[in-house]
Parts: sequence; structure tokens; C-alpha cells
Amino acid sequence: MSQNFLQQAYQDLAALVAIETVSAQGRNLEAGADFVTQLLEQEGFVVKQYKGKVAPVLVAEAGVGERTLLIYNHYDVQPESPLEEWNTPPFVVTEKTDADGIVRLHARGVSDDKGEFIVRLAALRALKAQHGGQLPLKIKWLLEGEEEIGSPSIESFVHDHATELQADGCWWEFGAIDPSGKPVLVGGLKGIICLELRCKVAESDLHSSYGAVVDNPLWKLAQAVSSLRDTNGKILIDGFYDSVRAPSAADLEAVAKIPDESTEFSKAYGIKGFLENASGARFYERLCLEPVLNVNGFHGGYGDAGSKTVLPKEGFVKLDFRLVPDQDPAQVLEQLKAHLIKIGLPDIEVVELETSGMAARSDLNHPFMQTAIATARDVYGVEPVVHPSAGGSGPMHPFIEYVGVPVICAGISNHKSFIHAPNENIVKAHFEKGFEFALEFFSRIAKM
Amino acid sequence: MSQNFLQQAYQDLAALVAIETVSAQGRNLEAGADFVTQLLEQEGFVVKQYKGKVAPVLVAEAGVGERTLLIYNHYDVQPESPLEEWNTPPFVVTEKTDADGIVRLHARGVSDDKGEFIVRLAALRALKAQHGGQLPLKIKWLLEGEEEIGSPSIESFVHDHATELQADGCWWEFGAIDPSGKPVLVGGLKGIICLELRCKVAESDLHSSYGAVVDNPLWKLAQAVSSLRDTNGKILIDGFYDSVRAPSAADLEAVAKIPDESTEFSKAYGIKGFLENASGARFYERLCLEPVLNVNGFHGGYGDAGSKTVLPKEGFVKLDFRLVPDQDPAQVLEQLKAHLIKIGLPDIEVVELETSGMAARSDLNHPFMQTAIATARDVYGVEPVVHPSAGGSGPMHPFIEYVGVPVICAGISNHKSFIHAPNENIVKAHFEKGFEFALEFFSRIAKM
Repeated sequence: MSQNFLQQAYQDLAALVAIETVSAQGRNLEAGADFVTQLLEQEGFVVKQYKGKVAPVLVAEAGVGERTLLIYNHYDVQPESPLEEWNTPPFVVTEKTDADGIVRLHARGVSDDKGEFIVRLAALRALKAQHGGQLPLKIKWLLEGEEEIGSPSIESFVHDHATELQADGCWWEFGAIDPSGKPVLVGGLKGIICLELRCKVAESDLHSSYGAVVDNPLWKLAQAVSSLRDTNGKILIDGFYDSVRAPSAADLEAVAKIPDESTEFSKAYGIKGFLENASGARFYERLCLEPVLNVNGFHGGYGDAGSKTVLPKEGFVKLDFRLVPDQDPAQVLEQLKAHLIKIGLPDIEVVELETSGMAARSDLNHPFMQTAIATARDVYGVEPVVHPSAGGSGPMHPFIEYVGVPVICAGISNHKSFIHAPNENIVKAHFEKGFEFALEFFSRIAKM
Repeated sequence: MSQNFLQQAYQDLAALVAIETVSAQGRNLEAGADFVTQLLEQEGFVVKQYKGKVAPVLVAEAGVGERTLLIYNHYDVQPESPLEEWNTPPFVVTEKTDADGIVRLHARGVSDDKGEFIVRLAALRALKAQHGGQLPLKIKWLLEGEEEIGSPSIESFVHDHATELQADGCWWEFGAIDPSGKPVLVGGLKGIICLELRCKVAESDLHSSYGAVVDNPLWKLAQAVSSLRDTNGKILIDGFYDSVRAPSAADLEAVAKIPDESTEFSKAYGIKGFLENASGARFYERLCLEPVLNVNGFHGGYGDAGSKTVLPKEGFVKLDFRLVPDQDPAQVLEQLKAHLIKIGLPDIEVVELETSGMAARSDLNHPFMQTAIATARDVYGVEPVVHPSAGGSGPMHPFIEYVGVPVICAGISNHKSFIHAPNENIVKAHFEKGFEFALEFFSRIAKM
């Protein structure tokens, strides 16, 4: 019986993947939105298309019942480049068995995020069949086409449509199956602000002997960067931690239960050591629950082989701050500017890069979150790993803050899915188990 | 009468310039050495060619008398690239009148350093003619072909031939005529050591969210760089100033007399301000008499437009220290390594780049130095500008320390000579005045 739904799902996935919806290049976003709309309308959804910054935002509704589930997915994908590193055509779903005998489906978007959308759609079809052609819960499905370019439309869209999007809980994109087969569920995302520091001391480069009298822009930038945190990574900007929401008892309990994979992670990337020598609960506390300053790039002056005795006229540094609830990126920006003035570097220019966003974290004790966790436990037959927040960022904040729903991530990628990279893939068995999870999750929400 | 010597000098200059002695590319260095040898032998010099690292070192001797003058020049030149920026063929001496009506000779090496060698040779011819065909002083002339690649053979060569090179004083290359027409004489050079700091935290780049647990190589390098000096440029490495030789009263007197061109310099390069807001004597004290740390380059991670949330695996910084007498580059290297350990960054690798060298500074009160200054005053009819040391570096140290001679720089370039750059040139009137100075200087040394 479920084989029929899966067969249909594979056909839908192939058709959706074939539409090259690369948001960074503005490719086929309308076509992607229209095909998703068509798939949803075939299942009885009423679909509204709203104008986003570069791609339509879709809100689809169907079903009846006491409970309402909000779902978030996106139909855009990352660029496929570098093309030469793909082993299969990037926009053709191709089944291959890997060296470990694991059957995988390869193509851009099979994992992030078209595969997840199709799995959920297939499960809703199966659920409807079980209930005489009627969904036993209300589904509100928000799909965007700008996730891979930082979701520039979502914060204000969700703010403006908060009433329309009311629900008992929200099922987010992503989430994974870990190497041991345990499902990994996530209850939040960090906030982010990306910045550039710029320093210029002259209109042209000088012979380095003039370093005796002319200040050095790279030393000034180094002084600025060095002053921002201590050796343990604690951020030293006045007021930075003032608005940080303390982790809940449930958050701390969850990180303490995460299996310690810090050693395997360290080996995989050849990492020379962790901040604070953290491992176990402390490792995941840092990763999931604490704000971070990261230096993405630092450039200025001579960079080729050997030496060049130049005093460069300028340099720049790229930074990101990963934030936790309730830190406001705009306030962090002001605090950073005040910090540079305080330490005597008012001439370092601070430029904000791209979209910033606030963090969001759900209450793990909420019945909706507990239902998701229990469903995963029962379907996968193993205790799920629960991260109160991912280390990464995304537009979850308006859902939790404006709509007021708890949000769970439960997905089907794994550590070898190569999301955003060549040879993106998904384990076929995870796709099928994901269908089973979705069907059970929908059923339990309906009865919650 | 002097016109004949100058005519011969222009012919010699054209012939020497035509031999493209580019040491960085190992081009025509033997041919250049042979032609210089031939020019010197024609004037009665006994010339010995010694094997250098890539080009012959020449020592030529001639003359009789009480006094001995050691001369240092080099017959190699900088590469001519970028060729498209030259307005005349780089290896053909071409006379042109500039927009201000000043007649200039253009070609690679006319200023640095073939023009200076030819001027001095022409003056010796004239001197010999005045003295019945016999030079009234002993000349020892050391010419190398590796100056533009850091003089890798000179330190040990001069050490090993210190007795053979004994003299009453040494006339170095370079020195200039300033924009107001005053001759600029220089009595020393700074030492130098060029280094690279390297930091690596992992074997591959990571998503920046892992900055929560993995240290950042650019922050660590920034911390290292920031710790090396204060906002005034004072170096904060333990022991760094211990061996610094205090400037003499004559050095301080000389810098106090240097006309203050800091404002013009600031305007020419669009400089936003000087360290300590230095001007006048303090400006030149810093430039001529104090050691300096300079950051030549700082690179790691993302450097293109916008943001990329990456935690780079590694980064590097290029530094130079300009040293004063009696600082030892090898000791500075050890002090820097100890400093990095002291501040908790033992994992930053320190790599020495290319040739380092010690500083050298002559006693401005020495009769030889005073003779040079007085000659310049009388020949140019104006009070010369005397720098006790240049801000730059070169292989003067073994001459002062091993041979034990005072060294003076007195030359013929000016601020628009474009040394090391396209359109290198020399003002024809400065070339001819340089001949006059050389003839008078030789005569006075003979009678000193």
C-alpha cells in the first residue's frame, strides 16, 4: 500500500528536481512555485501565492479537525557549481549504491529541501486515504523560494500574516539521521549578523620603512579583532550578554543527553583542539546554547610567496556573530560600534552585510515538541537525539515570536548528504522511513 | 674641459644600461661584471672578480697617496616590468624634457645604480687628468651584482675581506637632491628581518557555526599581531629594546635640523595621521633612529564581496622589523618566539623569510663624514640635509662593523626618479652636478 505512495513520491521528486530553482541566480523560481502549487492543489489544498523579494511565497491550506499543523519548506536550491565535481547530472534524480552498499538518490535538492517536501506530501496522501479522502487535521503549509539566499521576505511576511498562520505547532525543514541511525531533532536556530570591518590609513601603499611614522591598517584591524573575545571565545563587548535568555532546564537536560561525537568530529576535520577543551555536555552547550563571534576572513597587503616590505594602505575583516534568544542584531551592531570607539578605534568602519536575523528556541516541554520526540522514538525504535538549537541560523524567529508556535526540525538527511555541495544525495531507506515518520506524526498531531 | 669627461660618461652610461643586468632573473650578470671590469681596467684599476651567490663581486684598486677611499656600488638593476608603463625603451638611455621644462635621462638603472657608478668613474678620470695621469688617493671599489635581491653575498664577503678593504671612509650608493635642490646625505641604514606567522586549526574549512567550539586561526593571529606593539608603535616584546644603541648627540642634532616635510609627505600619499602626531624632529627621530614593526600582509578565509559564514582552517601574517644598531635579527626572532609562548600562542609558527641584516650608523662627527658634508655644502651652495640613518635597509653593516670605516651616502636621484618603477630617470643637471661633487670630494679626501 505505502509502495504506491512512495512510487508517486519518486515521480514527484524527479519532476520537482528537474526544475532548476536556483534562487542565487533567480533561475526558474516562478516555474518551481507553480509546480509546487499544482502538486498541492491536486491534493485539495487551497494555495495562495504572495510576492516575495525574488520568488513567490506560497501558503497552502487543507484539512479539518481540532488541530492545526504549520509546515515550513522551501522549493529553491543552492547553485549546482562546480559542475565538474558531480558524478551524476545535478538535476536528474539518479539512484546509486555507494561503496558501503547503501542505496542513495542523487541530485541537487533531494535532501535540501525538495525531498523533505515530497516525503511530507506523500504522507499526507496516505493519511487522506486512511481517512476516507479527508485530512483529519488542518495543514497550513508555507513554502518559500528564497531560503538559500537568506530568506529576505520571511520575517516581514510572517509578521504580517501571523493570524492566518496560527497553529498548534510548526514542522520545520531539515533534521537528520545520525551515523548510528538515530533521528536528530532540533528545537531552535541561532540568530546571525554578518559584518565587515574596514580600515584605511592612506590613499596609496607605502614603503614599509614609513611604518615608523604611519600607522598600520592591519595592526589596527588586528587590535579590533583581538579585543572582541577572550581565549575561551567569550565576547568582550560591553552589554553583549545583557539580553541573552538563559537556557531552560529542559535545554540543559537535552544537551546533557546528546551522545558525545566531539572526538569523531575532531578526527573528521583534523581539528587541533576545542575551545575550553570542551567535550560532552559542555561541547553541545557551547554549540547549541551560546552566542559566538567568528572571523570569516581577514585580508590586506601582500599575500604571495616570500616577503614584500610594503605598508598597505588598507585592509578588511569579515565577521559573523551567532546569537541566542533574545539578542537583537541591530543592538549588537550598535554595541560593536561603541566598543570600537571605547578602545580608541573610531576610524574603523563597520559595514553590515546581507540579512541578519534573531535566534529562536522552542520550549522542549511543549506537548507538540514531546509528540514529535515520542513519534521519532517509536518510528525509528531508538531514543532520538534532541538539540535545543542548531549551531546554524535561519528564519525561524518570526514563527516562534509572531505566530507563537513551537517549532521542531525532523528530517531525512545524513552526514554524507553533501547539502550545498556537489553530489547532494539522500539515503533511499531514510526517504522511506521519513515517509513513515511523517504519516505517524500527522496522525498523532491530529489526536493531540 | 669637464664637457669631454661628461660626453664620455654619457657614452659609458648608455653602454652599461644596454646590458640588461636583472639580478632577480639572473639576466646578463657576467656580461655586466665584465663590462664594468673593462671600464675600470681602462682607467688603470686592478680588478679582481670573486664568485657571489648569483653574480660576481668585483674589487678594483687604483691610485697612490696617504688616503684611501672605499666605494660601494652595484651593477644589477630591478626588473623592468611592467613594460607597458614605460614611455621610453627601458634599456636605452633617452633624453626627454618633462612638463616642468626639466631635462631628464630615462632608462632602468640611470639612477639606481649605474648612473652613480658612471658619474664617479668620470670624476676619477678628470681627477687623474688634473694630477698628471695619477690618482692622488687610493681607491678601493667594491661592486656587486646582487643588491636588488638583498645582497646575499656581501655580509660574509666583507667579513672575509675586511683587511683588504681597509680605508679612511666609504662612499655608499644613493642619496638624493631634495625638491628644493638641497643635497640629502645619509649616514646609516636600518637592519631588517622579514617573518611570516602561520596558524592552522583544522585540516579543512568548517561552517562558521562551529566557531562555538573550534578556535579561529584569524582571531589567534590577530591576537598575536595586536600584542606586538602599542598604539604609538612601541614594540611590546620582552627584551626587544635591550640592545638598542642610543642615538648620539650628533644623530639627534642632525634629525632636529632636517627640514620638516611631513605635511607634504602626508598630502602626497593621502595619509590620515602620523603615529604620536609626530612632526619635525620627532617625525625624523622615529623615521631615522627607532626600530619599527610593520605588518606587510594578513590573509585568511573569505575575501570576496558579501559574506560567507566560514570558519577558515588557517591564515598567515607577513611582518618586517626595521632594526637599529646593535639589534641582532636572530635575537629578535628568538624574542618573538618567546613572546608568542608567553602570551599563550605557542602553536603559531614563525617562519623567517629571505635575508635579514643588522643596522649600521656612522659617527657624523668623524672627519670623513664632515668632509662629505662640507663638500656638499660648498658644491651645491646650500646647507645639506643630513639623515643619520635612512628608514630603509641595506648591507652597510659589515662595512662599518668589520672594516671599521664610516660610511656616507651622497647621490644624484630625486623624488621623481621612479627608482624600482617604470620610467626610472635622472635629472641631467643633477648628473652633471654629481660629477662636480665627486671630483671635489675625491680631491678633499686626498688632502684630508
